[in-house]
Amino acid sequence: MDKNSLIANIKAKRSFLCVGLDTDIKRIPSLLLTEEDPVFAFNKAIVDATADLCIAYKPNLAFYECAGLKGWTSLEKTVRYIRDNYPEQFIIADAKRGDIGNTSQMYARSFFEQLDVDAVTVAPYMGEDSVRPFLGYPGKWVILLALTSNKGSMDFQLTADAQGERLFEKVIRQSRQWADDQAMMYVVGATRGPLFSDIRAIAPDHFLLVPGVGAQGGSLKEVVEYGMTRDCGLIVNASRQILYASDGKDFAQAARSEAQKLQHDMSEQLKMIF
Amino acid sequence: MDKNSLIANIKAKRSFLCVGLDTDIKRIPSLLLTEEDPVFAFNKAIVDATADLCIAYKPNLAFYECAGLKGWTSLEKTVRYIRDNYPEQFIIADAKRGDIGNTSQMYARSFFEQLDVDAVTVAPYMGEDSVRPFLGYPGKWVILLALTSNKGSMDFQLTADAQGERLFEKVIRQSRQWADDQAMMYVVGATRGPLFSDIRAIAPDHFLLVPGVGAQGGSLKEVVEYGMTRDCGLIVNASRQILYASDGKDFAQAARSEAQKLQHDMSEQLKMIF
Repeated sequence: MDKNSLIANIKAKRSFLCVGLDTDIKRIPSLLLTEEDPVFAFNKAIVDATADLCIAYKPNLAFYECAGLKGWTSLEKTVRYIRDNYPEQFIIADAKRGDIGNTSQMYARSFFEQLDVDAVTVAPYMGEDSVRPFLGYPGKWVILLALTSNKGSMDFQLTADAQGERLFEKVIRQSRQWADDQAMMYVVGATRGPLFSDIRAIAPDHFLLVPGVGAQGGSLKEVVEYGMTRDCGLIVNASRQILYASDGKDFAQAARSEAQKLQHDMSEQLKMIF
Repeated sequence: MDKNSLIANIKAKRSFLCVGLDTDIKRIPSLLLTEEDPVFAFNKAIVDATADLCIAYKPNLAFYECAGLKGWTSLEKTVRYIRDNYPEQFIIADAKRGDIGNTSQMYARSFFEQLDVDAVTVAPYMGEDSVRPFLGYPGKWVILLALTSNKGSMDFQLTADAQGERLFEKVIRQSRQWADDQAMMYVVGATRGPLFSDIRAIAPDHFLLVPGVGAQGGSLKEVVEYGMTRDCGLIVNASRQILYASDGKDFAQAARSEAQKLQHDMSEQLKMIF
């Protein structure tokens, strides 16, 4: 999917919500456990209940890998289901991969050829040649970790070099030479508030994937205040808040209500630009 | 596996060789393509041909994931085959994972409960809480990326902070507070030569997993000179050099010959300490 189509979807749906499919078999409603593939059954219900309110889905690979073969089956079925029924959705494999060139090439093949998602999250620690193999696919995106939402982000990402440039800034600045804003986005946690301004100073036009609203405590208002561009430039993810809004029969409806609240807030914020 | 058992295996086999199972279906001998599971058939032959010469196997997850479900099946069968037939082998899932706490917990479950490997490689970018969930399993290991063997390692890992501490040094120094040398190792590329001394200054007793000998151009002699400890402290990986030594009928024998050369050199080096 190209950047213009993504922006058009945001305009049309009045939403920049991404629903994170961090589907944990231990947390889904017990009534689904008799299904042949409970994880897929849950995802299907969540997707059907939220697709008109969001512009992206983000399956988190860990939650599928932990079930081995069964998990991969659920993941493939989920991606296929979204593709077939909601072709306008942007699908992000949240995988945080990154390895030497020939290995990253294999990961790129996994995600862009085998699974056929639109984007994959990539870790920057190993540098340019670990990221570049993901960039060889037209219409596909790398979403590079820059400043994450967790406490541990302070361990290394905020370390400044002798010139005062912090690691997350260096990652963005250098990686801008590897691909432009038509093929690269950055992960910036919603918990980072004013640091969004520092990021916009280096990457004024890039889309940012923003996790951490909801369960992790980030504020949508702050993210918009410091991070929104004239094209929106934000994909804000919510996972647990939506997925586990209820563990009863009404789980899909409860998920929809949570997504609706977020979409409503986003719609208000979008009035500033569209 | 605990550290003493690993050292005992190195002593007994006169080897600190790890065979990297970066098994690419496009590079295995074509005579295997008629097998029901060519990747597993290849791995089984390689393992049988090399198990007495090495102390570890390192399947590289990317090479399995890229085949989706089939790939996961091959991976599970490979790990199971090594476990059942060569229980002394240390099995490393080369996955370079790392995510927020609840997600890393799921990855830890994938690798330590589902696959049941001994160790997993983890990327440090997201900091302590992204690594800690992997540390909750007795006898299991985290192998944290410190200084990798690829060109891109120079992009961020060598960046010095205002006090002159480089990122890879900071990663090792800080992570030493998360786990000791009985549960943590570090990835240090064989191409880094004298930088091994800087690492030994911070981590004198930790095992280092050293990729990059062979196809990537690293020198075993240099690695030993700068990195070996009185307990050896090194697991040196070779992948392509062994796996693809021949693409004919003799592939397993050719792989064995390459492994033998490395084991012979290692055996000579081990005379200094054992």
